[in-house]
Amino acid sequence: MMKEKMRAASIYLFDEKGYSETSIQEIVDEIGVTKGTFYYYFNSKQELLKDINLTYIQFLLGKQEEILKENINYTEKLYRLIYMVISTIKTQRQSARVFFREMRHLSDEHLNIIKRKRNEFRSHFQKMLEEGIEAGEFNSNLRPDILTFGILGMTNWSYYWFNHEGEISEEELAKFYTDMLVNGIK
Amino acid sequence: MMKEKMRAASIYLFDEKGYSETSIQEIVDEIGVTKGTFYYYFNSKQELLKDINLTYIQFLLGKQEEILKENINYTEKLYRLIYMVISTIKTQRQSARVFFREMRHLSDEHLNIIKRKRNEFRSHFQKMLEEGIEAGEFNSNLRPDILTFGILGMTNWSYYWFNHEGEISEEELAKFYTDMLVNGIK
Repeated sequence: MMKEKMRAASIYLFDEKGYSETSIQEIVDEIGVTKGTFYYYFNSKQELLKDINLTYIQFLLGKQEEILKENINYTEKLYRLIYMVISTIKTQRQSARVFFREMRHLSDEHLNIIKRKRNEFRSHFQKMLEEGIEAGEFNSNLRPDILTFGILGMTNWSYYWFNHEGEISEEELAKFYTDMLVNGIK
Repeated sequence: MMKEKMRAASIYLFDEKGYSETSIQEIVDEIGVTKGTFYYYFNSKQELLKDINLTYIQFLLGKQEEILKENINYTEKLYRLIYMVISTIKTQRQSARVFFREMRHLSDEHLNIIKRKRNEFRSHFQKMLEEGIEAGEFNSNLRPDILTFGILGMTNWSYYWFNHEGEISEEELAKFYTDMLVNGIK
């Protein structure tokens, strides 16, 4: 599909060169079409960026929703959510980097749409932890809001260093982080 | 000092507008000097970016060194290192964002200098954890390398969300993260 092809080429270019440094001309050159084709699908480069960011966060929200509605305990949900983020590095690394790095180039209107979705992802995560506390599975002294930021920081950071073809597998990394979180390092 | 003034103005502009979008003209306009003054201190905008990134990472390395040579136990060192990163958000947030976001615009030669320092920071952190494991203070099943990435991810991420004027103090956040790491959330 042309729209997805354009999106894929732009993710590649935005990650390699940066959003501001990439022109619409370069995007259409990359896939061998004309600017007219670009404007058939998008009103502007910024709308394309919004589309890329929205697609990425919607993808994560969908995956998250599937896990949250499963009939498993909270420790298992925690593992599955961590694994989900880590395992998407393979296919979504560039999208994620464009998301975190280039989001600030969006207009307020677009930015609000993306931030609302991002906050939704975070608040679903936090709600899972709160339910785990209520169920007595996690410690009741915790602050679920800060804990959520801490866990997402840990997993999101892996986009910068984790190599899914390296010595440690996605499963191992997710298991390691879950164990560390659940049992502590003492 | 003129050089520091120029650095400060550039950090502000690079964070607000982005490195590529900021011209040398805008930097000198910001502090009311001429381009000649700029070129007295820096050969290029890229050299200025290297200087900003190097100053930031050297600052962290210096702080880290002070903590590591103190005569305290490893759990206390862990707390102090986490607190150090979080408490520098107040003064270094923009430098940190320029560091993580714009580093990729450096030439290979400059990038290698910065990466070496960044790896030094990470390997000092990891060494502290290894010594804590040897001393029996931390669990010997841990992988200190992955643990280091996890902790640094958690603390570095706070640059994006933590507000030092908010409801939670720097001390509380550092204490919370240390407790969570040491004791787990179970």
